[in-house]
Amino acid sequence: MRIVLRLAYDGTDFHGWARQPELRSVQEVLEAGLNRILRLQDPVRTVCAGRTDAGVHAHDQWVHFDVPDEAWQALGDRAEHRLRGVLPDDVQVLATSVAPHGFDARFSPLWRRYSYRICDDPKGVDPLRRRTILTHHRPLDVTAMHAAAQLLVGQHDFAAFCKQREGATTIRGLQRLDVSRERDDIVRADLVADAFCHSMVRSLMGALMAVGDGRQDIEWPLRVLQSGVRDPNVAVVAPHALVLEEVAYPDPEQLAHRAELTRARRTLVDPSSDGY
Amino acid sequence: MRIVLRLAYDGTDFHGWARQPELRSVQEVLEAGLNRILRLQDPVRTVCAGRTDAGVHAHDQWVHFDVPDEAWQALGDRAEHRLRGVLPDDVQVLATSVAPHGFDARFSPLWRRYSYRICDDPKGVDPLRRRTILTHHRPLDVTAMHAAAQLLVGQHDFAAFCKQREGATTIRGLQRLDVSRERDDIVRADLVADAFCHSMVRSLMGALMAVGDGRQDIEWPLRVLQSGVRDPNVAVVAPHALVLEEVAYPDPEQLAHRAELTRARRTLVDPSSDGY
Repeated sequence: MRIVLRLAYDGTDFHGWARQPELRSVQEVLEAGLNRILRLQDPVRTVCAGRTDAGVHAHDQWVHFDVPDEAWQALGDRAEHRLRGVLPDDVQVLATSVAPHGFDARFSPLWRRYSYRICDDPKGVDPLRRRTILTHHRPLDVTAMHAAAQLLVGQHDFAAFCKQREGATTIRGLQRLDVSRERDDIVRADLVADAFCHSMVRSLMGALMAVGDGRQDIEWPLRVLQSGVRDPNVAVVAPHALVLEEVAYPDPEQLAHRAELTRARRTLVDPSSDGY
Repeated sequence: MRIVLRLAYDGTDFHGWARQPELRSVQEVLEAGLNRILRLQDPVRTVCAGRTDAGVHAHDQWVHFDVPDEAWQALGDRAEHRLRGVLPDDVQVLATSVAPHGFDARFSPLWRRYSYRICDDPKGVDPLRRRTILTHHRPLDVTAMHAAAQLLVGQHDFAAFCKQREGATTIRGLQRLDVSRERDDIVRADLVADAFCHSMVRSLMGALMAVGDGRQDIEWPLRVLQSGVRDPNVAVVAPHALVLEEVAYPDPEQLAHRAELTRARRTLVDPSSDGY
Protein backbone atom coordinates (compact mmCIF):
# COMPACT_ATOMS: atom_id res chain seq x y z
CA MET A 1 0.00 0.00 0.00
CA ARG A 2 0.99 3.62 -0.53
CA ILE A 3 0.97 6.06 2.39
CA VAL A 4 0.78 9.86 2.12
CA LEU A 5 2.39 12.12 4.69
CA ARG A 6 2.06 15.85 4.98
CA LEU A 7 4.94 17.56 6.75
CA ALA A 8 6.11 20.96 7.92
CA TYR A 9 9.77 21.61 8.59
CA ASP A 10 12.28 24.25 9.55
CA GLY A 11 14.95 24.00 6.86
CA THR A 12 17.58 25.88 8.89
CA ASP A 13 19.47 22.81 10.06
CA PHE A 14 18.84 20.62 7.01
CA HIS A 15 20.86 20.34 3.82
CA GLY A 16 17.60 20.33 1.93
CA TRP A 17 15.04 17.61 1.32
CA ALA A 18 17.14 15.17 -0.68
CA ARG A 19 19.23 12.49 0.98
CA GLN A 20 22.96 13.09 0.57
CA PRO A 21 25.88 11.19 2.07
CA GLU A 22 27.09 12.55 5.42
CA LEU A 23 24.62 15.45 5.47
CA ARG A 24 21.46 15.88 7.52
CA SER A 25 18.49 15.99 5.14
CA VAL A 26 14.73 15.92 5.74
CA GLN A 27 14.44 12.75 3.67
CA GLU A 28 17.10 10.94 5.70
CA VAL A 29 15.60 12.00 9.04
CA LEU A 30 12.08 11.07 7.93
CA GLU A 31 13.12 7.70 6.50
CA ALA A 32 15.10 6.90 9.65
CA GLY A 33 11.95 7.67 11.68
CA LEU A 34 9.76 5.54 9.44
CA ASN A 35 12.20 2.65 9.49
CA ARG A 36 12.33 2.87 13.27
CA ILE A 37 8.58 2.46 13.68
CA LEU A 38 8.06 0.06 10.74
CA ARG A 39 11.07 -2.25 11.29
CA LEU A 40 11.07 -3.57 7.72
CA GLN A 41 13.74 -5.63 6.00
CA ASP A 42 13.81 -3.23 3.06
CA PRO A 43 14.09 0.35 4.25
CA VAL A 44 11.31 2.72 3.21
CA ARG A 45 12.03 5.08 0.30
CA THR A 46 10.11 8.36 0.26
CA VAL A 47 9.15 10.61 -2.66
CA CYS A 48 8.19 14.25 -2.09
CA ALA A 49 6.24 16.92 -3.98
CA GLY A 50 8.80 19.73 -3.73
CA ARG A 51 12.47 18.87 -3.42
CA THR A 52 13.43 21.89 -1.31
CA ASP A 53 17.04 23.12 -1.34
CA ALA A 54 19.26 23.53 1.72
CA GLY A 55 17.78 26.09 4.08
CA VAL A 56 14.32 26.16 2.47
CA HIS A 57 11.33 25.53 4.76
CA ALA A 58 7.99 23.82 4.25
CA HIS A 59 4.59 24.51 5.73
CA ASP A 60 2.91 21.68 3.83
CA GLN A 61 5.18 19.25 2.03
CA TRP A 62 3.57 16.06 0.62
CA VAL A 63 5.41 12.75 0.67
CA HIS A 64 4.52 9.23 -0.36
CA PHE A 65 6.09 5.84 0.32
CA ASP A 66 5.13 2.24 -0.29
CA VAL A 67 4.94 -0.28 2.51
CA PRO A 68 3.62 -3.84 2.92
CA ASP A 69 -0.02 -3.70 4.02
CA GLU A 70 0.53 -5.73 7.16
CA ALA A 71 3.40 -3.52 8.39
CA TRP A 72 1.30 -0.37 8.25
CA GLN A 73 -1.84 -2.03 9.57
CA ALA A 74 0.11 -3.41 12.53
CA LEU A 75 0.63 0.15 13.71
CA GLY A 76 -3.11 0.85 13.50
CA ASP A 77 -4.20 4.28 14.71
CA ARG A 78 -0.88 4.83 16.43
CA ALA A 79 1.24 5.27 13.28
CA GLU A 80 1.00 9.06 13.22
CA HIS A 81 1.55 9.40 16.95
CA ARG A 82 4.52 7.00 16.86
CA LEU A 83 6.09 8.87 13.98
CA ARG A 84 5.73 12.19 15.85
CA GLY A 85 7.46 10.57 18.78
CA VAL A 86 10.57 9.62 16.80
CA LEU A 87 11.02 12.75 14.65
CA PRO A 88 13.07 15.76 15.82
CA ASP A 89 11.26 18.99 16.63
CA ASP A 90 12.22 20.69 13.36
CA VAL A 91 9.96 18.26 11.46
CA GLN A 92 6.23 18.19 12.13
CA VAL A 93 3.80 15.53 10.88
CA LEU A 94 0.61 17.29 9.80
CA ALA A 95 -1.30 14.24 8.54
CA THR A 96 -0.96 10.63 7.42
CA SER A 97 -3.37 8.67 5.26
CA VAL A 98 -3.58 5.82 2.81
CA ALA A 99 -2.98 7.18 -0.70
CA PRO A 100 -5.85 7.06 -3.16
CA HIS A 101 -5.26 4.84 -6.19
CA GLY A 102 -2.80 6.40 -8.63
CA PHE A 103 -1.44 9.00 -6.20
CA ASP A 104 2.16 10.10 -6.74
CA ALA A 105 3.49 12.90 -4.53
CA ARG A 106 5.90 14.02 -7.24
CA PHE A 107 3.95 13.52 -10.46
CA SER A 108 0.32 14.09 -9.43
CA PRO A 109 0.41 17.76 -8.29
CA LEU A 110 -1.56 20.34 -10.24
CA TRP A 111 0.61 23.08 -8.81
CA ARG A 112 3.01 24.05 -6.02
CA ARG A 113 2.89 27.35 -4.13
CA TYR A 114 5.93 28.96 -2.51
CA SER A 115 6.23 32.19 -0.51
CA TYR A 116 9.27 34.45 -0.20
CA ARG A 117 9.54 37.23 2.41
CA ILE A 118 11.82 40.28 2.48
CA CYS A 119 12.17 42.95 5.16
CA ASP A 120 13.28 46.31 3.74
CA ASP A 121 13.05 48.29 6.98
CA PRO A 122 16.31 50.21 7.59
CA LYS A 123 16.15 48.93 11.19
CA GLY A 124 16.49 45.37 9.89
CA VAL A 125 14.28 42.38 10.58
CA ASP A 126 12.66 41.35 13.87
CA PRO A 127 15.28 38.96 15.33
CA LEU A 128 12.53 36.45 16.13
CA ARG A 129 11.67 36.20 12.43
CA ARG A 130 15.14 36.49 10.95
CA ARG A 131 15.35 32.77 10.16
CA THR A 132 12.48 33.05 7.64
CA ILE A 133 12.78 36.61 6.27
CA LEU A 134 15.50 38.12 4.10
CA THR A 135 16.86 41.54 5.09
CA HIS A 136 17.35 44.00 2.25
CA HIS A 137 19.00 47.32 2.98
CA ARG A 138 17.30 49.34 0.29
CA PRO A 139 13.58 50.12 0.16
CA LEU A 140 11.60 48.02 -2.32
CA ASP A 141 8.95 49.34 -4.69
CA VAL A 142 6.38 46.54 -4.58
CA THR A 143 4.26 48.07 -7.33
CA ALA A 144 7.20 47.88 -9.71
CA MET A 145 8.06 44.36 -8.56
CA HIS A 146 4.49 43.17 -9.06
CA ALA A 147 4.30 44.77 -12.51
CA ALA A 148 7.59 43.14 -13.54
CA ALA A 149 6.34 39.80 -12.18
CA GLN A 150 3.17 39.86 -14.31
CA LEU A 151 5.31 39.89 -17.47
CA LEU A 152 6.78 36.52 -16.43
CA VAL A 153 3.51 34.70 -15.78
CA GLY A 154 2.67 31.99 -18.31
CA GLN A 155 4.19 28.90 -19.87
CA HIS A 156 7.82 29.74 -20.71
CA ASP A 157 11.27 28.28 -20.93
CA PHE A 158 12.74 29.52 -17.62
CA ALA A 159 16.31 28.49 -18.52
CA ALA A 160 17.53 32.00 -17.66
CA PHE A 161 16.30 31.54 -14.09
CA CYS A 162 17.33 27.92 -13.51
CA LYS A 163 20.39 26.00 -12.58
CA GLN A 164 20.54 23.97 -15.76
CA ARG A 165 20.83 20.21 -15.50
CA GLU A 166 21.96 18.44 -18.59
CA GLY A 167 19.07 17.07 -20.63
CA ALA A 168 16.41 18.47 -18.27
CA THR A 169 13.66 20.72 -19.58
CA THR A 170 13.27 24.17 -18.08
CA ILE A 171 9.82 24.81 -19.48
CA ARG A 172 7.39 25.53 -16.65
CA GLY A 173 3.94 27.04 -16.29
CA LEU A 174 4.16 29.98 -13.90
CA GLN A 175 0.52 30.48 -12.94
CA ARG A 176 0.89 33.27 -10.43
CA LEU A 177 3.61 35.60 -9.14
CA ASP A 178 2.12 38.20 -6.83
CA VAL A 179 4.23 40.70 -4.88
CA SER A 180 2.63 42.69 -2.11
CA ARG A 181 3.41 44.32 1.21
CA GLU A 182 2.32 41.97 3.98
CA ARG A 183 3.13 44.55 6.66
CA ASP A 184 4.74 47.99 6.55
CA ASP A 185 8.18 46.44 6.73
CA ILE A 186 7.68 43.07 5.00
CA VAL A 187 7.30 42.31 1.30
CA ARG A 188 5.83 38.92 0.41
CA ALA A 189 5.87 37.15 -2.95
CA ASP A 190 3.54 34.24 -3.73
CA LEU A 191 4.58 31.98 -6.58
CA VAL A 192 2.43 29.25 -8.10
CA ALA A 193 3.61 26.94 -10.90
CA ASP A 194 2.90 23.44 -12.14
CA ALA A 195 6.48 22.76 -11.04
CA PHE A 196 9.67 24.75 -10.43
CA CYS A 197 13.18 23.97 -11.60
CA HIS A 198 16.18 24.15 -9.37
CA SER A 199 16.79 27.63 -7.84
CA MET A 200 14.02 29.10 -10.03
CA VAL A 201 12.10 30.86 -7.24
CA ARG A 202 15.26 32.37 -5.76
CA SER A 203 16.47 33.59 -9.17
CA LEU A 204 13.09 35.11 -9.98
CA MET A 205 13.13 36.88 -6.62
CA GLY A 206 16.66 38.15 -7.24
CA ALA A 207 15.53 39.64 -10.55
CA LEU A 208 12.42 41.23 -9.02
CA MET A 209 14.42 42.71 -6.15
CA ALA A 210 16.72 44.42 -8.66
CA VAL A 211 13.57 46.03 -10.08
CA GLY A 212 12.24 46.80 -6.60
CA ASP A 213 15.25 48.79 -5.49
CA GLY A 214 15.63 50.62 -8.79
CA ARG A 215 18.71 48.90 -10.22
CA GLN A 216 16.72 47.61 -13.19
CA ASP A 217 13.58 48.65 -15.06
CA ILE A 218 10.28 46.79 -15.01
CA GLU A 219 10.85 45.02 -18.36
CA TRP A 220 14.32 43.75 -17.44
CA PRO A 221 13.27 40.37 -15.93
CA LEU A 222 11.22 39.70 -19.10
CA ARG A 223 14.24 40.51 -21.26
CA VAL A 224 16.34 38.11 -19.17
CA LEU A 225 13.66 35.42 -19.60
CA GLN A 226 13.56 35.97 -23.35
CA SER A 227 17.36 35.84 -23.65
CA GLY A 228 17.17 32.23 -22.47
CA VAL A 229 20.54 32.40 -20.73
CA ARG A 230 21.50 33.17 -17.15
CA ASP A 231 22.40 36.78 -16.48
CA PRO A 232 25.13 37.54 -13.93
CA ASN A 233 23.00 40.46 -12.71
CA VAL A 234 20.34 38.04 -11.47
CA ALA A 235 21.27 37.11 -7.91
CA VAL A 236 20.11 33.77 -6.55
CA VAL A 237 18.86 35.15 -3.25
CA ALA A 238 19.13 33.39 0.11
CA PRO A 239 17.10 30.22 0.74
CA HIS A 240 16.01 30.91 4.34
CA ALA A 241 13.16 33.23 3.27
CA LEU A 242 11.60 30.61 0.98
CA VAL A 243 8.75 28.38 2.18
CA LEU A 244 6.91 25.62 0.32
CA GLU A 245 3.39 26.61 1.38
CA GLU A 246 0.98 24.38 -0.48
CA VAL A 247 0.74 21.56 -3.00
CA ALA A 248 -2.52 20.99 -4.89
CA TYR A 249 -3.59 17.55 -6.12
CA PRO A 250 -6.51 16.69 -8.36
CA ASP A 251 -9.55 14.82 -7.12
CA PRO A 252 -8.80 11.14 -6.45
CA GLU A 253 -10.48 9.95 -9.66
CA GLN A 254 -8.20 12.22 -11.70
CA LEU A 255 -4.98 11.24 -9.91
CA ALA A 256 -3.70 8.38 -12.02
CA HIS A 257 -4.50 10.25 -15.20
CA ARG A 258 -2.69 13.36 -13.98
CA ALA A 259 0.47 11.45 -13.03
CA GLU A 260 0.57 9.71 -16.43
CA LEU A 261 0.09 13.02 -18.17
CA THR A 262 2.91 14.69 -16.24
CA ARG A 263 5.26 11.76 -16.75
CA ALA A 264 4.46 11.57 -20.46
CA ARG A 265 4.89 15.30 -21.02
CA ARG A 266 8.17 15.43 -19.12
CA THR A 267 9.39 12.31 -20.93
CA LEU A 268 8.52 13.75 -24.31
CA VAL A 269 10.52 16.87 -23.64
CA ASP A 270 13.31 15.07 -21.88
CA PRO A 271 13.56 11.77 -20.10
CA SER A 272 15.51 12.93 -17.04
CA SER A 273 13.31 15.82 -15.97
CA ASP A 274 12.79 16.09 -12.27
CA GLY A 275 9.13 16.85 -12.26
CA TYR A 276 9.37 19.05 -9.17
CA MET B 1 24.16 62.84 28.82
CA ARG B 2 21.81 59.87 29.05
CA ILE B 3 20.94 57.87 25.93
CA VAL B 4 17.87 55.65 25.50
CA LEU B 5 17.94 52.59 23.27
CA ARG B 6 15.03 50.42 22.27
CA LEU B 7 15.98 46.86 21.33
CA ALA B 8 14.46 43.63 20.09
CA TYR B 9 16.26 40.35 20.58
CA ASP B 10 16.00 36.63 20.11
CA GLY B 11 16.78 35.21 23.54
CA THR B 12 17.53 31.70 22.24
CA ASP B 13 21.30 32.02 22.29
CA PHE B 14 21.56 34.38 25.27
CA HIS B 15 21.84 33.55 28.95
CA GLY B 16 19.37 36.34 29.63
CA TRP B 17 19.77 40.09 29.75
CA ALA B 18 22.12 40.37 32.71
CA ARG B 19 25.88 40.23 32.30
CA GLN B 20 27.39 37.08 33.83
CA PRO B 21 30.96 35.86 33.75
CA GLU B 22 31.76 33.53 30.83
CA LEU B 23 28.19 33.54 29.47
CA ARG B 24 26.79 35.32 26.44
CA SER B 25 24.22 37.89 27.64
CA VAL B 26 22.38 40.67 25.83
CA GLN B 27 23.91 43.24 28.17
CA GLU B 28 27.45 42.04 27.48
CA VAL B 29 26.94 41.97 23.70
CA LEU B 30 25.28 45.39 23.71
CA GLU B 31 27.93 46.99 25.93
CA ALA B 32 30.71 45.50 23.80
CA GLY B 33 29.06 47.06 20.74
CA LEU B 34 28.66 50.43 22.43
CA ASN B 35 32.24 50.40 23.66
CA ARG B 36 33.42 49.56 20.18
CA ILE B 37 31.74 52.59 18.61
CA LEU B 38 32.28 54.99 21.55
CA ARG B 39 35.89 54.08 22.45
CA LEU B 40 35.68 55.50 25.96
CA GLN B 41 38.16 55.07 28.80
CA ASP B 42 35.38 53.97 31.13
CA PRO B 43 33.25 51.28 29.55
CA VAL B 44 29.55 52.04 29.20
CA ARG B 45 27.19 50.46 31.73
CA THR B 46 23.63 49.84 30.61
CA VAL B 47 20.40 49.61 32.61
CA CYS B 48 17.31 47.94 31.17
CA ALA B 49 13.56 48.02 31.82
CA GLY B 50 12.97 44.27 31.99
CA ARG B 51 15.77 41.99 33.08
CA THR B 52 14.76 39.00 30.96
CA ASP B 53 15.85 35.50 31.99
CA ALA B 54 17.82 33.08 29.85
CA GLY B 55 15.85 32.18 26.72
CA VAL B 56 13.31 35.01 27.05
CA HIS B 57 12.88 37.30 24.03
CA ALA B 58 12.13 41.00 23.65
CA HIS B 59 10.18 42.89 21.02
CA ASP B 60 10.74 46.26 22.68
CA GLN B 61 13.23 46.38 25.52
CA TRP B 62 14.26 49.84 26.79
CA VAL B 63 17.82 50.54 27.92
CA HIS B 64 19.63 53.62 29.16
CA PHE B 65 23.29 54.47 29.60
CA ASP B 66 25.27 57.59 30.45
CA VAL B 67 28.00 58.88 28.20
CA PRO B 68 30.09 62.08 27.98
CA ASP B 69 28.28 64.55 25.71
CA GLU B 70 31.19 64.91 23.30
CA ALA B 71 31.56 61.15 22.78
CA TRP B 72 27.95 60.78 21.66
CA GLN B 73 27.88 63.98 19.68
CA ALA B 74 31.03 62.92 17.81
CA LEU B 75 29.03 60.07 16.29
CA GLY B 76 26.32 62.46 15.14
CA ASP B 77 23.53 60.91 13.08
CA ARG B 78 25.58 57.80 12.50
CA ALA B 79 25.36 56.41 16.05
CA GLU B 80 22.35 54.20 15.40
CA HIS B 81 23.66 52.96 12.06
CA ARG B 82 27.12 52.27 13.53
CA LEU B 83 25.60 50.34 16.43
CA ARG B 84 23.53 48.23 14.02
CA GLY B 85 26.73 47.47 12.16
CA VAL B 86 28.51 46.03 15.20
CA LEU B 87 25.69 44.05 16.83
CA PRO B 88 24.96 40.41 15.94
CA ASP B 89 21.78 39.56 14.06
CA ASP B 90 19.93 38.31 17.13
CA VAL B 91 19.85 41.86 18.53
CA GLN B 92 18.03 44.63 16.66
CA VAL B 93 18.25 48.35 17.45
CA LEU B 94 14.77 49.82 17.10
CA ALA B 95 15.57 53.40 18.12
CA THR B 96 18.10 55.61 19.87
CA SER B 97 17.50 59.03 21.39
CA VAL B 98 18.72 61.40 24.06
CA ALA B 99 16.83 60.65 27.28
CA PRO B 100 14.48 63.29 28.63
CA HIS B 101 15.47 64.74 31.99
CA GLY B 102 14.84 62.28 34.81
CA PHE B 103 14.47 59.21 32.59
CA ASP B 104 15.48 55.90 34.12
CA ALA B 105 14.86 52.74 32.06
CA ARG B 106 14.44 50.66 35.21
CA PHE B 107 12.63 52.97 37.62
CA SER B 108 10.51 55.18 35.36
CA PRO B 109 8.19 52.60 33.73
CA LEU B 110 4.48 52.78 34.45
CA TRP B 111 4.12 49.16 33.40
CA ARG B 112 5.67 46.26 31.46
CA ARG B 113 3.76 43.96 29.13
CA TYR B 114 4.80 40.37 28.38
CA SER B 115 3.22 37.77 26.11
CA TYR B 116 3.33 34.00 26.47
CA ARG B 117 2.25 31.61 23.69
CA ILE B 118 1.26 27.95 23.89
CA CYS B 119 0.33 25.55 21.09
CA ASP B 120 -2.06 22.82 22.23
CA ASP B 121 -2.60 21.20 18.84
CA PRO B 122 -2.02 17.42 19.07
CA LYS B 123 0.07 17.76 15.87
CA GLY B 124 2.53 19.98 17.78
CA VAL B 125 3.76 23.42 16.87
CA ASP B 126 4.75 24.78 13.45
CA PRO B 127 8.51 24.07 13.36
CA LEU B 128 9.12 27.62 12.09
CA ARG B 129 7.59 29.02 15.28
CA ARG B 130 8.82 26.46 17.78
CA ARG B 131 11.49 28.79 19.19
CA THR B 132 8.82 31.19 20.51
CA ILE B 133 5.85 28.93 21.30
CA LEU B 134 5.50 26.26 23.99
CA THR B 135 4.02 22.92 22.97
CA HIS B 136 1.48 21.44 25.36
CA HIS B 137 0.16 17.97 24.70
CA ARG B 138 -3.26 18.39 26.30
CA PRO B 139 -5.97 20.73 25.03
CA LEU B 140 -6.34 23.96 27.01
CA ASP B 141 -9.63 25.51 28.10
CA VAL B 142 -8.91 29.22 27.59
CA THR B 143 -12.18 30.30 29.16
CA ALA B 144 -11.20 28.58 32.40
CA MET B 145 -7.66 29.98 32.20
CA HIS B 146 -8.94 33.51 31.65
CA ALA B 147 -11.42 33.20 34.53
CA ALA B 148 -8.68 31.92 36.86
CA ALA B 149 -6.41 34.76 35.73
CA GLN B 150 -8.95 37.45 36.62
CA LEU B 151 -8.84 36.34 40.26
CA LEU B 152 -5.12 37.20 40.35
CA VAL B 153 -5.37 40.71 38.94
CA GLY B 154 -4.64 43.48 41.42
CA GLN B 155 -1.98 44.55 43.92
CA HIS B 156 -0.87 41.43 45.77
CA ASP B 157 2.11 39.76 47.37
CA PHE B 158 3.11 37.35 44.59
CA ALA B 159 5.60 35.45 46.80
CA ALA B 160 3.92 32.14 45.85
CA PHE B 161 4.79 32.78 42.20
CA CYS B 162 8.29 34.23 42.59
CA LYS B 163 11.78 32.98 43.08
CA GLN B 164 12.32 34.68 46.40
CA ARG B 165 15.42 36.81 46.88
CA GLU B 166 16.35 37.58 50.42
CA GLY B 167 15.07 40.95 51.53
CA ALA B 168 13.30 41.70 48.24
CA THR B 169 9.62 42.54 48.17
CA THR B 170 7.29 40.40 46.08
CA ILE B 171 4.40 42.85 46.12
CA ARG B 172 3.43 43.73 42.56
CA GLY B 173 0.47 45.33 40.82
CA LEU B 174 -0.80 42.92 38.18
CA GLN B 175 -2.91 45.19 35.99
CA ARG B 176 -3.95 42.73 33.33
CA LEU B 177 -3.75 38.99 32.67
CA ASP B 178 -5.78 38.09 29.61
CA VAL B 179 -5.82 34.60 28.11
CA SER B 180 -7.29 34.10 24.66
CA ARG B 181 -6.96 31.93 21.58
CA GLU B 182 -4.85 33.79 19.03
CA ARG B 183 -5.45 31.11 16.41
CA ASP B 184 -7.18 27.74 16.48
CA ASP B 185 -4.02 26.09 17.73
CA ILE B 186 -2.33 28.88 19.72
CA VAL B 187 -3.23 30.26 23.14
CA ARG B 188 -1.79 33.67 24.03
CA ALA B 189 -1.55 35.30 27.44
CA ASP B 190 -0.93 39.04 27.85
CA LEU B 191 0.38 40.15 31.22
CA VAL B 192 0.74 43.75 32.36
CA ALA B 193 2.18 44.79 35.72
CA ASP B 194 4.03 47.75 37.20
CA ALA B 195 6.92 45.28 37.51
CA PHE B 196 7.41 41.52 37.68
CA CYS B 197 9.57 39.55 40.07
CA HIS B 198 11.90 36.81 38.99
CA SER B 199 10.12 33.90 37.21
CA MET B 200 6.70 35.40 38.06
CA VAL B 201 5.25 35.27 34.54
CA ARG B 202 6.38 31.70 33.98
CA SER B 203 4.98 30.55 37.36
CA LEU B 204 1.66 32.29 36.72
CA MET B 205 1.49 30.58 33.32
CA GLY B 206 2.31 27.21 34.88
CA ALA B 207 -0.58 27.65 37.33
CA LEU B 208 -3.01 28.75 34.60
CA MET B 209 -2.03 25.83 32.36
CA ALA B 210 -2.88 23.42 35.19
CA VAL B 211 -6.34 25.01 35.19
CA GLY B 212 -6.50 24.95 31.40
CA ASP B 213 -5.93 21.23 31.05
CA GLY B 214 -8.20 20.31 33.95
CA ARG B 215 -5.65 19.31 36.58
CA GLN B 216 -6.81 22.11 38.87
CA ASP B 217 -9.98 24.13 39.38
CA ILE B 218 -10.42 27.80 38.53
CA GLU B 219 -9.90 29.04 42.12
CA TRP B 220 -6.67 27.07 42.64
CA PRO B 221 -4.21 29.76 41.44
CA LEU B 222 -5.92 32.25 43.79
CA ARG B 223 -5.56 29.82 46.69
CA VAL B 224 -1.86 29.41 45.86
CA LEU B 225 -1.48 33.21 45.78
CA GLN B 226 -3.21 33.55 49.14
CA SER B 227 -1.09 30.80 50.70
CA GLY B 228 1.93 33.05 50.14
CA VAL B 229 4.28 30.11 49.62
CA ARG B 230 5.46 28.32 46.52
CA ASP B 231 3.46 25.25 45.59
CA PRO B 232 5.28 22.29 44.02
CA ASN B 233 2.27 21.84 41.70
CA VAL B 234 3.03 25.19 40.06
CA ALA B 235 5.45 24.50 37.23
CA VAL B 236 7.78 27.28 36.12
CA VAL B 237 7.15 26.81 32.41
CA ALA B 238 9.76 27.17 29.68
CA PRO B 239 11.24 30.62 28.93
CA HIS B 240 11.30 30.43 25.12
CA ALA B 241 7.59 31.26 24.78
CA LEU B 242 7.92 34.49 26.79
CA VAL B 243 8.41 37.86 25.09
CA LEU B 244 8.82 41.30 26.64
CA GLU B 245 6.46 43.16 24.32
CA GLU B 246 6.16 46.70 25.60
CA VAL B 247 7.29 49.09 28.32
CA ALA B 248 5.26 52.21 29.06
CA TYR B 249 6.83 55.39 30.40
CA PRO B 250 5.08 58.52 31.64
CA ASP B 251 5.21 61.82 29.77
CA PRO B 252 8.62 63.48 30.01
CA GLU B 253 7.48 66.05 32.60
CA GLN B 254 6.37 63.18 34.89
CA LEU B 255 9.53 61.09 34.49
CA ALA B 256 11.68 62.29 37.34
CA HIS B 257 8.73 62.22 39.72
CA ARG B 258 7.84 58.68 38.68
CA ALA B 259 11.39 57.38 39.19
CA GLU B 260 11.58 58.96 42.65
CA LEU B 261 8.23 57.48 43.56
CA THR B 262 9.23 53.98 42.46
CA ARG B 263 12.57 54.14 44.20
CA ALA B 264 11.01 55.47 47.39
CA ARG B 265 8.25 52.86 47.45
CA ARG B 266 10.65 49.99 46.79
CA THR B 267 13.07 51.35 49.37
CA LEU B 268 10.34 51.63 51.96
CA VAL B 269 9.32 48.03 51.48
CA ASP B 270 12.84 46.80 51.08
CA PRO B 271 16.07 48.41 50.04
CA SER B 272 17.32 45.69 47.70
CA SER B 273 14.24 45.34 45.50
CA ASP B 274 15.02 44.91 41.86
CA GLY B 275 12.46 47.24 40.46
CA TYR B 276 11.97 45.14 37.32
